[in-house]
Amino acid sequence: MNCNKEKTVAKSIIAARGGMTLLSRDEVNKMLEMGTGSVHALFRKCCLAVLNCDAKEDDAMAVLSRYPDFDVKLLPRERGIHLEFVNAPSQAFVDGKMISGIRDSIFSVLRDIIYQSSEHNDGNFDETTQSGITNMVFEMLRRGEVHQFGKTPNLVVCWGGHSINKVEYQYTKNVGYQLGLRGADICTGCGTGAMKGPMKGASVGHAKQRIYDGRYIGLTEPGIIAAEAPNPIVNKLVIMPDIEKRLEAFVRLGHGIIVFPGGVGTAEEILYLIGLLSHPDNKDNPYPFIMTGPKEAEEYFRQIDAFIRFALGDEVASLYEIIIDDPEKVAIKMVDGLERVKTYRSDKQISYYFDWDLEIDKGFQFPFVPTHENMLNLNLSQDQPVNILAADLRKVFSGIVAGNVKEFGRKQIQEHGVYKIVGNKELMNRLDTLLESFIDQKRMKLPGTEYTPVFEVVQ
Amino acid sequence: MNCNKEKTVAKSIIAARGGMTLLSRDEVNKMLEMGTGSVHALFRKCCLAVLNCDAKEDDAMAVLSRYPDFDVKLLPRERGIHLEFVNAPSQAFVDGKMISGIRDSIFSVLRDIIYQSSEHNDGNFDETTQSGITNMVFEMLRRGEVHQFGKTPNLVVCWGGHSINKVEYQYTKNVGYQLGLRGADICTGCGTGAMKGPMKGASVGHAKQRIYDGRYIGLTEPGIIAAEAPNPIVNKLVIMPDIEKRLEAFVRLGHGIIVFPGGVGTAEEILYLIGLLSHPDNKDNPYPFIMTGPKEAEEYFRQIDAFIRFALGDEVASLYEIIIDDPEKVAIKMVDGLERVKTYRSDKQISYYFDWDLEIDKGFQFPFVPTHENMLNLNLSQDQPVNILAADLRKVFSGIVAGNVKEFGRKQIQEHGVYKIVGNKELMNRLDTLLESFIDQKRMKLPGTEYTPVFEVVQ
Amino acid sequence: MNCNKEKTVAKSIIAARGGMTLLSRDEVNKMLEMGTGSVHALFRKCCLAVLNCDAKEDDAMAVLSRYPDFDVKLLPRERGIHLEFVNAPSQAFVDGKMISGIRDSIFSVLRDIIYQSSEHNDGNFDETTQSGITNMVFEMLRRGEVHQFGKTPNLVVCWGGHSINKVEYQYTKNVGYQLGLRGADICTGCGTGAMKGPMKGASVGHAKQRIYDGRYIGLTEPGIIAAEAPNPIVNKLVIMPDIEKRLEAFVRLGHGIIVFPGGVGTAEEILYLIGLLSHPDNKDNPYPFIMTGPKEAEEYFRQIDAFIRFALGDEVASLYEIIIDDPEKVAIKMVDGLERVKTYRSDKQISYYFDWDLEIDKGFQFPFVPTHENMLNLNLSQDQPVNILAADLRKVFSGIVAGNVKEFGRKQIQEHGVYKIVGNKELMNRLDTLLESFIDQKRMKLPGTEYTPVFEVVQ
Amino acid sequence: MNCNKEKTVAKSIIAARGGMTLLSRDEVNKMLEMGTGSVHALFRKCCLAVLNCDAKEDDAMAVLSRYPDFDVKLLPRERGIHLEFVNAPSQAFVDGKMISGIRDSIFSVLRDIIYQSSEHNDGNFDETTQSGITNMVFEMLRRGEVHQFGKTPNLVVCWGGHSINKVEYQYTKNVGYQLGLRGADICTGCGTGAMKGPMKGASVGHAKQRIYDGRYIGLTEPGIIAAEAPNPIVNKLVIMPDIEKRLEAFVRLGHGIIVFPGGVGTAEEILYLIGLLSHPDNKDNPYPFIMTGPKEAEEYFRQIDAFIRFALGDEVASLYEIIIDDPEKVAIKMVDGLERVKTYRSDKQISYYFDWDLEIDKGFQFPFVPTHENMLNLNLSQDQPVNILAADLRKVFSGIVAGNVKEFGRKQIQEHGVYKIVGNKELMNRLDTLLESFIDQKRMKLPGTEYTPVFEVVQ
Repeated sequence: MNCNKEKTVAKSIIAARGGMTLLSRDEVNKMLEMGTGSVHALFRKCCLAVLNCDAKEDDAMAVLSRYPDFDVKLLPRERGIHLEFVNAPSQAFVDGKMISGIRDSIFSVLRDIIYQSSEHNDGNFDETTQSGITNMVFEMLRRGEVHQFGKTPNLVVCWGGHSINKVEYQYTKNVGYQLGLRGADICTGCGTGAMKGPMKGASVGHAKQRIYDGRYIGLTEPGIIAAEAPNPIVNKLVIMPDIEKRLEAFVRLGHGIIVFPGGVGTAEEILYLIGLLSHPDNKDNPYPFIMTGPKEAEEYFRQIDAFIRFALGDEVASLYEIIIDDPEKVAIKMVDGLERVKTYRSDKQISYYFDWDLEIDKGFQFPFVPTHENMLNLNLSQDQPVNILAADLRKVFSGIVAGNVKEFGRKQIQEHGVYKIVGNKELMNRLDTLLESFIDQKRMKLPGTEYTPVFEVVQ
Repeated sequence: MNCNKEKTVAKSIIAARGGMTLLSRDEVNKMLEMGTGSVHALFRKCCLAVLNCDAKEDDAMAVLSRYPDFDVKLLPRERGIHLEFVNAPSQAFVDGKMISGIRDSIFSVLRDIIYQSSEHNDGNFDETTQSGITNMVFEMLRRGEVHQFGKTPNLVVCWGGHSINKVEYQYTKNVGYQLGLRGADICTGCGTGAMKGPMKGASVGHAKQRIYDGRYIGLTEPGIIAAEAPNPIVNKLVIMPDIEKRLEAFVRLGHGIIVFPGGVGTAEEILYLIGLLSHPDNKDNPYPFIMTGPKEAEEYFRQIDAFIRFALGDEVASLYEIIIDDPEKVAIKMVDGLERVKTYRSDKQISYYFDWDLEIDKGFQFPFVPTHENMLNLNLSQDQPVNILAADLRKVFSGIVAGNVKEFGRKQIQEHGVYKIVGNKELMNRLDTLLESFIDQKRMKLPGTEYTPVFEVVQ
Repeated sequence: MNCNKEKTVAKSIIAARGGMTLLSRDEVNKMLEMGTGSVHALFRKCCLAVLNCDAKEDDAMAVLSRYPDFDVKLLPRERGIHLEFVNAPSQAFVDGKMISGIRDSIFSVLRDIIYQSSEHNDGNFDETTQSGITNMVFEMLRRGEVHQFGKTPNLVVCWGGHSINKVEYQYTKNVGYQLGLRGADICTGCGTGAMKGPMKGASVGHAKQRIYDGRYIGLTEPGIIAAEAPNPIVNKLVIMPDIEKRLEAFVRLGHGIIVFPGGVGTAEEILYLIGLLSHPDNKDNPYPFIMTGPKEAEEYFRQIDAFIRFALGDEVASLYEIIIDDPEKVAIKMVDGLERVKTYRSDKQISYYFDWDLEIDKGFQFPFVPTHENMLNLNLSQDQPVNILAADLRKVFSGIVAGNVKEFGRKQIQEHGVYKIVGNKELMNRLDTLLESFIDQKRMKLPGTEYTPVFEVVQ
Repeated sequence: MNCNKEKTVAKSIIAARGGMTLLSRDEVNKMLEMGTGSVHALFRKCCLAVLNCDAKEDDAMAVLSRYPDFDVKLLPRERGIHLEFVNAPSQAFVDGKMISGIRDSIFSVLRDIIYQSSEHNDGNFDETTQSGITNMVFEMLRRGEVHQFGKTPNLVVCWGGHSINKVEYQYTKNVGYQLGLRGADICTGCGTGAMKGPMKGASVGHAKQRIYDGRYIGLTEPGIIAAEAPNPIVNKLVIMPDIEKRLEAFVRLGHGIIVFPGGVGTAEEILYLIGLLSHPDNKDNPYPFIMTGPKEAEEYFRQIDAFIRFALGDEVASLYEIIIDDPEKVAIKMVDGLERVKTYRSDKQISYYFDWDLEIDKGFQFPFVPTHENMLNLNLSQDQPVNILAADLRKVFSGIVAGNVKEFGRKQIQEHGVYKIVGNKELMNRLDTLLESFIDQKRMKLPGTEYTPVFEVVQ
């Protein structure tokens, strides 16, 4: 599994399988038109990320710069579209032939990028309305063929950091193994760490149980695919258009969610889910939600729990369960929860394949832009419904993530100094303490770098 | 296989399979809205035709009138859409449970009618342009899942009359049997006679060769489904929006065509295909085209051949081959032809699944309305390209079919008398002779009825 | 489906599939040794019978004499055994390639003849004991892979004449169709008539219900395979060593039996089954047993019923049901019966795949040799258990069949005159009447020939 | 994957799948008779070994003693045999249900032990002749359904130590991964270390290539199954009767062999294979044979190579290739070799599934009993054919293995002192040096224990 990063395969042609063998002339023409424009640039970038599968680094730009001569072209053929690669990373090939799983991922990329670009132009989905967005999310997943007819609810979404330590990584594998033994399928955000561990564990569990059709669904988006390339276990890959649609895909497609340790980004996801599940319309929806980690992660979850209870009240704590260092218990609880999901959906005649009934607030479907003004204007008053407060608290974490690592956020900080976050004294103290503890636990940055805070809590 | 026509099953609910289990909320809502409008009426009519499968009569109106209390409703369920039938014909059920093949056909009807209606509203296809029509035809077939990956060109379209005699019917079975033995799949227009015989024969041939994935594709349209309900062998059913798109589907989807004896309608189809293949752009396209029948049908094909040679020249006769009373030879020739199709498409990189390259003239894609004026204005001069003349000759036959049996045409005749057809003397004599011979051979009307001509040849 | 009987294919090699690809060197050597001996003669004869599939005649000797140059050789190859045919009947081939279904049957013949010959030599089964015979029957069926895991009892055995008239043949198809619609599989004795009709009907029913794994099991034996070659629908073929083991295979493998009209041979089978089911040890075994035919066959069954009631008592009549002219009712009753079989076996933990518990009397397992002495010594006294009397009555019919058509029996008659059958006056009168009625109904001989009785009832 | 070794499941019943659902009454009776005798004791022991899958220790007796209340009984049921377990190790169960893969292994154990015991009694195989033994080996593998029709030669046997270090274990995984990427299947001797690593690696390679039918064949024998329980990846398990038949199964079933580092046992296997391949009758047989390991193992192979070259001559060194620290090269060379095997067998029409043509000398088929006398009498003279000398050299290593760890051998040493090995001076010096180096490399015993030599080289 050793990769010589600069070694390339000069020329290689692969043939489509499945749906991509059957395209209309219009669809083929649209693809061929990609030759020069921005869609082609995007496609090239995503292909390179997928082909560069086993590489260690997560800097998309760096990857691209190391393969300046890489290119990909479309060729229409009598049995469907073919792709020609020029100077592609050699680790994607065995004896000059592209690895089948990588080929499948490449065609998932092609499918999603083409359809997104074509549908955007055709105006098939109204992305300005909530139902338009939800329909688009559904359509992307349906095209990705992530559903499996005849199965009852068994899809567990796993969230968590992708640069976790070895003990935590092994723990995610153990949980995945216990889930796999019990027939659960896994959905994560691609990439490594807590995204890969549960799939790897589940694949061993499936093998022991002679389950040959296990699903390892990866949901990613163009902005992140280069940094978090699909790990080789992923057998269903969908590239969602943006972060918000990806989150919506997770919660409507999955039947339960497990959160492993992570950084402030994981905290953001936790608040997203709490905000969602605490919406009054969702209160009967039995959504299994478990936070878990090894002994070492106990403090992390304890602090998050304490903060949530203070900020949003003890009732919201009933939405989740924290289980420390017990993979088997996590799996048993999750499988019990899936049973309740099945009963609920069956009684209420909600699709097993996509939870149309889950109410997602506008504040969660439309992106939050972390300008200083927007950060300052967040309403962190406790005199409002918990789901509304949760939404704005999530934006706090979202802004901090942006300020830490995203291009836009870092530029804001450079120009205007640290973000100011306003709220009542006690809540702000607690928030400050939580964020300080993340810094202490080295969860704000990759190990080995010093963290400089990008925010200031103002009372 | 005895049907008590008035016996019904009071209430029955069936669950969708395959693609229909996975619908977006929008799609379900569109379906539920069908409750009252014209789409529902169309859906109800087509369902009744499919359920009334084994009945002998071919009068759609009569069928509907005998089941005044029949209805069908949609029910959204957690595992996909369900259909509830009220007072449905009992022959579609075994011990109260709908026959699986009929259930599949019902969901094909639902799929096609819903998508057509929804796409018409959404304006996804531009039916005013040729490429828009062709794209729509392709999309309908793709949705119908009629393609089979990995197979080389093997789909033989069979045309011919649906009320042929016993000897001719047996002959169509024999040809189908020889094709099936050689691995060919069959596509026809549903219904009985020459539409059913080749499928039945092929299914025996497939069974002997242990071919378990044989395709028996039925292409129909709403106006004809009641009269020609899908025979029980059909395992892929697509309801095309109208006659012209159905013809286009036949010629682009199929890899070769066999024409069995029929009436004036079959003559029309022959001229359609000749017009198509004699188009200069199609002259390199190796389209296998065989007319065949038992000894008894020799005269029929001899006269058609003579007429074509006189009207369009001997060269066009090289487009087809007439084989009398030799099913094995028909199959061997056809299979040879399929091999040439494969080579051609492979060389020119044309899809095996849909012949995008076949040039179809505007005159064949847009419907011909048989008013007296239109009939009179047909240009039957021999001083024009053969494919153009073929197109107008086809319209002559089309008009006569309409005057014979279609509601619109018969009304025209009642109000304005017989159609007048104008052309040069010799051609008109020949046409007259040909049509007279159809009358003599009792091919103008169902056996047992006297034929009153609806046309007059004017020189 | 036209056969030029003298046309042959000069040379053709086919490769084994499935189990025959994996033979030990010993097994291959045993096969190769067949080159000259009697096993080879038997194999050659059976191959020819199978290859001569669609021929009309049923005289094995005639078939062999028309293909004097036919031969078959074994070739060991790296992927399993191959067979080389010389001068084989051309109707088994399509464009020089053997039809797949026929190839499968040929390898079934090879398998059964080789194993029988080899096991006979190895002494694996003790054919002198009842349990030895039963074990051998089981082993033959297991090797024939006639079982289907996961299916509940659904195998209906159909008996009846193979030279029935058109009305009766159509009726057997209709019954098969109704059974197929209800998911039943069919087992018959190969050949045409009532052996083919139910399979043909069932295959249509299965197709309509989208059942792709329907079983059409043919059980034959070397002495009869040439006369009753497996019809093309048979997809599981087993050649049992002799008539008695074939009958045992029918009753232990099947879950219910339908008897269609036939001749005196069918009467023999009816008495076999009555004798079996009236055995005290079998009285709780819920074995569905239906005699059925069209209107025209009513008299046939009425007379058999009357004779049985007189000879064996009214109680035995409760073992069977006679249904006239109602295929749907036959199927519904049979399916009900299969449900009872399932419950019974499940409760008593008897295999679904083979009814080990059915008690078969010695008189039914060992062959009856119809010499004049044996015929004369049959004990037809009514002062004995009905199952014992039934056994001897069966032998009466068996002897008459032999005297009518079998080589041994006809020779006996030529040398010693007609058989004498002794019993009490009234029973003998009834028997005489029954046999006279078979003569009147032309069920003793093929249509068109005059029947000369081979027996005389003596009081 | 945590095992509480003393935790048990009080009672559990599992149902057979596949072939074990279809047994004759005789077969079932034979199984039920196992209730008390030695066959039952053997079956119980092997079941316990399989159920105790993830345990770390390799002492069979210790395992048995920790589960004194464990038992297993057979129950005949209507759908095939069932097994009832009492007080079985809990790690074989998930939420009270036995893991599917373990269930499959249990039924493999049942199958092989029953058939061996029954065939031994029936005398089906003559174990006193070479061809009798080979036929038995074939029959065991055929029953184990280890073959896959349609695949060309792709089965790579991996040998090596089962208690290798981490670096070596990782290396076996890497080689397996490279083989799996190239579509090779893996066969090993069950257990951990070099037996598990290649399977684990190959399973990842198969997953990446979307190969879903990869074979992970484990060949074991009753004496070793407890110490080397089938690892969970094994999906085809066969329990051969003894060590010699197991070795024969490896070399006839596999298409190439890779040897990883091991101890003196591995040296024995290397000499077995060299003796086999240097037999004059096998010299054209292109048997791929590669020794490989990481950098750390270079010395080990260098010394073995040197010893072989000295003892048997440089020509035998052409039978194998030594590749150090290059998994990809190993896989490429092996796949090339498989291609040659395919060509060879195809040309010579030798079965792909079992190499009947490989000549195995008597000295390799019958067991060697390591008494002092036998050891002393070994002929280590270099004045004899290399394959004969190789056979006796193998026995030297075999005896040392026995003296080191096997019950019989250790007893011999206790009673009679160390083995004496006689040969010419230089050869004995070289042998001594080789064995000393194994001691230095800690390959004679498990790490952490001091090795006391059991042999003495005498000149």
